[in-house]
Amino acid sequence: MFTGLCAFPLTPLHQHGVDETAFARIVTRLAESAVDALGVLGSTGSYAWLSREQRIQVIRQAKSHAGAVPLMAGIGALGTDRVLRLAEDAQRAGANALLLPAIAYQPLTEEEIFAFYQTVTREVSVPVCVYDNPVTTHVTTSDALKGAIAALPGIASIKIPGPAKNDVARRVQSLRRQLPAEVTIGISGDACAADGLNAGCEVWYSVCGGLFPYVAKELTAAATRGQAQLAEAISARLEPLWTLYRKYGGSLRVTAAAATILGLCGEDCLPRPLLPLSPDAFREIAETLRSLNLE
Amino acid sequence: MFTGLCAFPLTPLHQHGVDETAFARIVTRLAESAVDALGVLGSTGSYAWLSREQRIQVIRQAKSHAGAVPLMAGIGALGTDRVLRLAEDAQRAGANALLLPAIAYQPLTEEEIFAFYQTVTREVSVPVCVYDNPVTTHVTTSDALKGAIAALPGIASIKIPGPAKNDVARRVQSLRRQLPAEVTIGISGDACAADGLNAGCEVWYSVCGGLFPYVAKELTAAATRGQAQLAEAISARLEPLWTLYRKYGGSLRVTAAAATILGLCGEDCLPRPLLPLSPDAFREIAETLRSLNLE
Repeated sequence: MFTGLCAFPLTPLHQHGVDETAFARIVTRLAESAVDALGVLGSTGSYAWLSREQRIQVIRQAKSHAGAVPLMAGIGALGTDRVLRLAEDAQRAGANALLLPAIAYQPLTEEEIFAFYQTVTREVSVPVCVYDNPVTTHVTTSDALKGAIAALPGIASIKIPGPAKNDVARRVQSLRRQLPAEVTIGISGDACAADGLNAGCEVWYSVCGGLFPYVAKELTAAATRGQAQLAEAISARLEPLWTLYRKYGGSLRVTAAAATILGLCGEDCLPRPLLPLSPDAFREIAETLRSLNLE
Repeated sequence: MFTGLCAFPLTPLHQHGVDETAFARIVTRLAESAVDALGVLGSTGSYAWLSREQRIQVIRQAKSHAGAVPLMAGIGALGTDRVLRLAEDAQRAGANALLLPAIAYQPLTEEEIFAFYQTVTREVSVPVCVYDNPVTTHVTTSDALKGAIAALPGIASIKIPGPAKNDVARRVQSLRRQLPAEVTIGISGDACAADGLNAGCEVWYSVCGGLFPYVAKELTAAATRGQAQLAEAISARLEPLWTLYRKYGGSLRVTAAAATILGLCGEDCLPRPLLPLSPDAFREIAETLRSLNLE
């Protein structure tokens, strides 16, 4: 489950918490499109704002609509004790793999980050994907530290953020040298996906794929078949979507608006303090989706 | 309670959670030294890693040992719903004021930050202190936004991080112009306290004061009496302590080690993933405390 397209669905909320109906709708679409894996409770899945009970609810709901698609669940939290409880919850609720970020409040030392991964991987019985995304977790790790963590028993993959456009191949190759051969590298940051897959990443941890699975599968399949230029062309066609991500502070708010526009969930589906985008932004996103045939 | 010295005690932990005995010891020392206010569950109080139940436990314990000293409690969390629950808990447990950070996972917009403070201040009935510390919360606010937030009914003070040494007076004066006159400015970042108080800050939100209340009171009193040079001299004398903060990644790990050295709590009192400092660091901190007569 750590190769190909791993789709990261939104967790739509309404005023009483998780919007189970809308979430089931989103997961069902992904199961029907046969993505290679589902990644619930990632950043796009708003894990950071959800309670323990809500996270269990999300995993159970995903499991019951995922069909044969394997399920990875995020277990991110600041404290190690809390992470261990979330890991136990996720495994009981049917997660086939866990997505594990180290998150900083006070800046963490390298020793603390390593010990954190060591402690958690010792306690879990399903494979773990290392979540690396300094913009949200405020933890930055060297390739050497990533290598040490990836060598821990139980680590199966590492999810990396999109590097600068012209630096993707160098970054992926440099990281590859530090990792055990069996640990896959997954590219995140949708705008970098084609470059990352073309540079040897084995998986796309995809926000776009969580809402638009067919085009994301098309891109992933092209890169996997070695059709690098086709993968790049598909990514270039989606450039207006990547532009919206940049314009509106990341992919989450745009994805939430897009899910609303597609009729998958209500308009106000983000966790407070996040606010829905403006009516103007909604109009712009709707026009972009129409022009890209992503409706 | 938003003038003078507000001492921020550590929340020492042991393997079963909050070390109530050690915490009571620390709070009792502060009550006996008659600091002007207590600030529990700040960053030094490890709020970010504590559960809802542990936070209630800390506030109750503080209340029962604080004597006549007014009590401010941190209610920080990522999600607005959770913050509202923590605010309700803290008020029920006896907090006289609340310390409120906006915290980012995804970067927040100015509109989201303002709406967050507006929502929370509408729901609470005790005064609120705005917590500004981008290093831990990853939220950076302009002075204009701070001014808009400070004008909300219920805001009584704003806790600012220490600016660059040679920029303190300019920063404090520039912020002062944006705030309602009745909202006090509190300096944080112990190494900047003398400069901040001398520049017109009305309160020191003090980590040092949470463990060494007498010297912190001395510094605060000097600045308050207008004895700017004396306040600076006391701060200069404490420079070896500020140097330790810088050397060991901030004040929290040093304060935890110092509390152990003073016999107030066990050696491993930080929440995981944070680790206690090395034996060498403990020795260096013990020597520094001895040389400063802070034992």
